[in-house]
Amino acid sequence: MLQETIKKIRSVKTELAERAQKHLDDLTKPPGSLGRLEEFAKRLVAITENMMPVIDKKVIFTFAGDHGVAEEGVSAYPKEVTRQMVINFLNGGAGINVLARYADAEVVVVDIGVDFDFYHASPLTNGGAKVEIGGLFVSRKIVRGTKNMRKGPAMTRHEAIRCIEVGIELADEYVKKDYKIFGTGEMGIANTTSSSAIAAVLTGKPVSELTGRGTGISDEALKNKIRVIEEAISLNRPDPSAPLDVLAKVGGAEVGGIAGLIIGAAEKRLPVIIDGFISTAGALVAYFLEPKTKDYMFAAHNSMEIGHKAMLEKIGLRPILDLDLRLGEGTGSALAMLMIEAGLKIYKEMATFGEACISKKFRVRNLKLEG
Amino acid sequence: MLQETIKKIRSVKTELAERAQKHLDDLTKPPGSLGRLEEFAKRLVAITENMMPVIDKKVIFTFAGDHGVAEEGVSAYPKEVTRQMVINFLNGGAGINVLARYADAEVVVVDIGVDFDFYHASPLTNGGAKVEIGGLFVSRKIVRGTKNMRKGPAMTRHEAIRCIEVGIELADEYVKKDYKIFGTGEMGIANTTSSSAIAAVLTGKPVSELTGRGTGISDEALKNKIRVIEEAISLNRPDPSAPLDVLAKVGGAEVGGIAGLIIGAAEKRLPVIIDGFISTAGALVAYFLEPKTKDYMFAAHNSMEIGHKAMLEKIGLRPILDLDLRLGEGTGSALAMLMIEAGLKIYKEMATFGEACISKKFRVRNLKLEG
Repeated sequence: MLQETIKKIRSVKTELAERAQKHLDDLTKPPGSLGRLEEFAKRLVAITENMMPVIDKKVIFTFAGDHGVAEEGVSAYPKEVTRQMVINFLNGGAGINVLARYADAEVVVVDIGVDFDFYHASPLTNGGAKVEIGGLFVSRKIVRGTKNMRKGPAMTRHEAIRCIEVGIELADEYVKKDYKIFGTGEMGIANTTSSSAIAAVLTGKPVSELTGRGTGISDEALKNKIRVIEEAISLNRPDPSAPLDVLAKVGGAEVGGIAGLIIGAAEKRLPVIIDGFISTAGALVAYFLEPKTKDYMFAAHNSMEIGHKAMLEKIGLRPILDLDLRLGEGTGSALAMLMIEAGLKIYKEMATFGEACISKKFRVRNLKLEG
Repeated sequence: MLQETIKKIRSVKTELAERAQKHLDDLTKPPGSLGRLEEFAKRLVAITENMMPVIDKKVIFTFAGDHGVAEEGVSAYPKEVTRQMVINFLNGGAGINVLARYADAEVVVVDIGVDFDFYHASPLTNGGAKVEIGGLFVSRKIVRGTKNMRKGPAMTRHEAIRCIEVGIELADEYVKKDYKIFGTGEMGIANTTSSSAIAAVLTGKPVSELTGRGTGISDEALKNKIRVIEEAISLNRPDPSAPLDVLAKVGGAEVGGIAGLIIGAAEKRLPVIIDGFISTAGALVAYFLEPKTKDYMFAAHNSMEIGHKAMLEKIGLRPILDLDLRLGEGTGSALAMLMIEAGLKIYKEMATFGEACISKKFRVRNLKLEG
């Protein structure tokens, strides 16, 4: 299924982008003066093959998964925080809930690999938040947390493929539900560790240049984190030319889900916004599986996590925002959606030079004059 | 009046920002992980001296003025475009109309110096657009265009002061109307020429480093523009330590209006968003008149116009967005408003660690489960 989907992905048509630029140049402003807003509009036209694209239904997928490597002390938080944050998402109290609401996007929380059974969780020990639905919870659990990559492969090859397929299936489903733009997001304690490992293998750069403080660890813990990643890579020997091998050996379930969502979006000709560091690791896997997926990606922002830039450069994406974010969840996707939509509004709503001169008379009596 | 207003401006209280940061650190996210969104929220608290700031009523002031120096061929467009664009604003078809609508902000178009009489304009010769009110038109004309600064001072000292006072008066008026945040914007053919001159005098950097292509002029025209600015400065000898002298000799009416709006906002403890290159020239004048005004400024974006960065650095502002914009009008202010408001929503709407654990039971039966 993965291979079939990949085969169907096409590059976007530059002719359509050029036609869109002609319209943009006809609007009442100096040519090109709205910079990247014009680029966003143009790309939406080319991606959707629609001269009047619509992005009325928006959704952000927050993939959640646990990581065996968390037991190596690579994060400032214990593993339990993954499931506690899932519950916070469902209560509507997390950053992604606030920002998605603001961007008028839905949040879909996907349990693709949390080491916790949400169905049989009745009286929870998370302090006992009452769950109210702030988004939709989707159970697509492929693993109950990955294995500790420092001791062996994080996932089997089959599990890695299934994670990607979950993303593709969700893309299909939400295209059928008439959603027009996707955003990626994630939650998973220790997932910057996994993402740095993926980044190191796929960009070929040293682990130390791609590994940051994640949720905010000490100098000591950062040294340990780098060592853990280096050991995981030298133990598992992921093949840099085989993205599935990399995802299986040092990846995470949520990273696979994100890669799949991007592949599915590209096949269905939908724009997909890549959030931050971990989402970009997923984008990198998708890009290595099929470089044409790049045509459908928007990079939301430049994360504070130090390895992010190298991954964006590898794919060839310029981030939309630069706001020192490092939360993940899809928060950057939600903010970037606002900017992409602004570009589309410019394209659709501004007057052309022609329109601004259509009527024959300047009727000053209609002016609401003051002062 | 100007001096009296300036005297009343106070620095914002850092204690309030610290209290706001304490609340931000209590929200369900790693401390500081929402980066500049947290900064925006914190600054709003400190500026308004209100632990729960409200920015429900938003307004962008688009100051319009003509420039005598336009006759030196410094712009890609003829002078008439200033008034034609004012009419486009009133028709609701310009970039600022689209983006302000999107940001839920009003647009107030201020005729502070257009060389055209909008009141006696009945059958216009601009191609004859019918005026429908897309915003409010405010007539506060101080000059009918500035004089050509290459041949003498652009304005008298009295005119320059009156322009600033117009901005202060508008700030007062719109505070009374209960507006909670201001954005600046402008329209005026040749106003990058005036703004580059102001930037050169007040930053002390060479004209050639601060002069760009504005609406999009050729290499030849750029050389001419630089020469015109250099000649204007050496003829008029504006005093770098006297911002009013600089504004009068090489400034523009709209630049003065913007400076005044900022001063008025600072005195009334209101946040004010500085748009792009020309607005920042206004901000620079305000900053030189009273450095404490900086506490109330948000820099919307990093303009494509090359001199912008030097001015922002002189004031000490870090721009919010970097989207290759160079349109002006207030378009960057509208987009930045979206980000500032996102920061406030985070501050107000996210759950605290405490709240996420308040109730005693995790009731799984409330979950809308799927799949």
